[in-house]
Amino acid sequence: MALVVQKYGGTSVATPELIRRVAERIVSRHKQGHRMVVVVSAMGDTTDDMLALANKVSSRPPDREVDMLLACGERISMSLLAMAVQDLGVAAVSLTGGQSGIITDAVHRKARILDLKPDRLLEELHKDQVLIVAGFQGVTTDAEETTLGRGGSNLTAVALAYALKADVCEMNTDVDGIYTADPRVVPEACKLSVVTPDEMLELASAGARVLQSRSVEFAKKYGVVIHVRSSFNENPGTLIKEVEEMEEVVVRGIAHDLGEAKITMRHVPDRPGVAARLFGPLADKNINVDMIIQNTSEAGSTDLSFTVGKTDLDRALEVCQGIRAELGADEVVADAQIAKISVVGVGMRSHAGVAAGMFQALAAANINIHMISTSEIKISCVVGQPDAEKAVRALHAAFKLDKSS
Amino acid sequence: MALVVQKYGGTSVATPELIRRVAERIVSRHKQGHRMVVVVSAMGDTTDDMLALANKVSSRPPDREVDMLLACGERISMSLLAMAVQDLGVAAVSLTGGQSGIITDAVHRKARILDLKPDRLLEELHKDQVLIVAGFQGVTTDAEETTLGRGGSNLTAVALAYALKADVCEMNTDVDGIYTADPRVVPEACKLSVVTPDEMLELASAGARVLQSRSVEFAKKYGVVIHVRSSFNENPGTLIKEVEEMEEVVVRGIAHDLGEAKITMRHVPDRPGVAARLFGPLADKNINVDMIIQNTSEAGSTDLSFTVGKTDLDRALEVCQGIRAELGADEVVADAQIAKISVVGVGMRSHAGVAAGMFQALAAANINIHMISTSEIKISCVVGQPDAEKAVRALHAAFKLDKSS
Repeated sequence: MALVVQKYGGTSVATPELIRRVAERIVSRHKQGHRMVVVVSAMGDTTDDMLALANKVSSRPPDREVDMLLACGERISMSLLAMAVQDLGVAAVSLTGGQSGIITDAVHRKARILDLKPDRLLEELHKDQVLIVAGFQGVTTDAEETTLGRGGSNLTAVALAYALKADVCEMNTDVDGIYTADPRVVPEACKLSVVTPDEMLELASAGARVLQSRSVEFAKKYGVVIHVRSSFNENPGTLIKEVEEMEEVVVRGIAHDLGEAKITMRHVPDRPGVAARLFGPLADKNINVDMIIQNTSEAGSTDLSFTVGKTDLDRALEVCQGIRAELGADEVVADAQIAKISVVGVGMRSHAGVAAGMFQALAAANINIHMISTSEIKISCVVGQPDAEKAVRALHAAFKLDKSS
Repeated sequence: MALVVQKYGGTSVATPELIRRVAERIVSRHKQGHRMVVVVSAMGDTTDDMLALANKVSSRPPDREVDMLLACGERISMSLLAMAVQDLGVAAVSLTGGQSGIITDAVHRKARILDLKPDRLLEELHKDQVLIVAGFQGVTTDAEETTLGRGGSNLTAVALAYALKADVCEMNTDVDGIYTADPRVVPEACKLSVVTPDEMLELASAGARVLQSRSVEFAKKYGVVIHVRSSFNENPGTLIKEVEEMEEVVVRGIAHDLGEAKITMRHVPDRPGVAARLFGPLADKNINVDMIIQNTSEAGSTDLSFTVGKTDLDRALEVCQGIRAELGADEVVADAQIAKISVVGVGMRSHAGVAAGMFQALAAANINIHMISTSEIKISCVVGQPDAEKAVRALHAAFKLDKSS
């Protein structure tokens, strides 16, 4: 008999029929004797539909009112799911973020959790009820409603798992776990039984968009065990937790990301302050820069390359063109046809040679490397987009990941 | 410069375009120097759509969860309307029922207001903002959300007008005022510039479904002046308020109601307790009985007739058949083809002869009367449904209402 926090995403509750199916899953676990706390996202495209409505009534919808609007999405699904569970004969109650004691700051649309006051949740749990909690939302100490930003329902689930000392936090998604590579690209890809939070963070930022980084960071910091599994079957998925005895595993998985573009400023004079002068204005415009590489190409000048999300490319180029002359750069060139391929594994911390193995495998497949970036547990290479799938398959084979578990 | 509470119904905010139009109306009043508090209903058919969803996930949606669900309807429209007002350059903030201090009991789906704590509203008003309040909802002292029942947004508006000591409570609807009769039936019907709350209550219960009775009762009790007007033009509508100097006006208007059906229990033994034995079980089944007439038809027995809503007819007949034998009645007969025609006016209190005038007018039009019921300011006759429109026109002419104002 465990205390289980479950989270269901929008695709899992997109229709009344799916809501009834989720209710059956919850009830079946409840009948096994588990105490269930279920965090739910808005149905299907509700959030996007609401944003579209907002943009029809306002040229620039204010964040505070957008939060008031969006918070309804999760309230709708939570009340419907609570009805469906009760209809199966099991007591259930839905609770908003505020009623669940999720206290946030007042930064609308990307509020941060300040405190967790699970008194009401504990009280309702003692009545042997299933609790259905609206994800993605919280409340300030002034009773203002807030939302936690994209993927915030995952954060809600992890935070409640921590506050309630749950045995596990199950993320029910449309994939059935974390794989050694994207199975659509590598048919031999294996589902991993366990990854560490650090690996998950690197895999997420490297393009394996199963879990939002904030929820994994929270889980890592507070020791919450996450179980990523499918909403549509009962198969075990992938546990995200710290593992002591896994030093022999060097590489955990291969991630690829087609969502970035590369910008190069050519022949920038090599003097102090250049990088600050460039990346300050980009940050001011909320443009996230991922990889940054600086190569001295000839005496006194350097090529400065970096990657940004493809959707930010035009705005980033505008910034670069605006300060090109001031920086003394020759020209600004962009390349949107790139892919970032990453090899991830905590074992790299104590094993040398992974980088070399990666470069050899790519060379053997005749794939040119544009950029390289390394962290303690990850090596990323930017290659041409047409080479992306070939690169993932070559690396998956080279590191023998088809034998993982 | 006045403090104006406005209420907009669901049809007035059914689409983003209509929301923008309502925002323009609000802003134009604000720019005239008025302080605006706007109560809004859910967009168009939102509430019905949500109930349909609830019925898809549950065979019997529990009231508490239905309230959680339905309250989102007004939250969505309030946030969109606040966005639209801000987009026109005027500061605005949306507030839920709870944030507006509408404290109710915990009877879900038909909660009653227990207390009004307008502190937050007053605070926001002092910032020279337009306030947009979600109608139809409140909150219990345990932070549980409730809804006030059908037409609850009107009640919200009247309650806030009272709590804020507003100068007027404007009900913006799809009709532009209260008429001496339904203009679709009587082309000469006149818009009334004023009616008393008592007249409005009788007109409402007699079939003129412009305002929910609860909101008029609240307004009467607490002296709130209501202005019923159109959402779609700037014409003055009808004021609902007490008027001293209107004794010369005898009849204010003619209402008709096609929504009732008549049941007669024939030859019920005339002994004490019969009515209680019949109407007790009907009340237990939440069947509202309107008119009740008892005629002694022959020695020792009586015919008992009453009207119920057409939608309750089958259930009411079931109850009657169930106790017919016990009561000793000969038979139960029903007639759904009836219409209730009512003549309403506070002047009747001090003027005799209205009933006689009504019966004469109906006789002159060759219309047979099935049932008669009177109150201090109303006389209602049940006639055959085919005679309904002819009866309304005959009475409108007989009481010279085409000259009203």
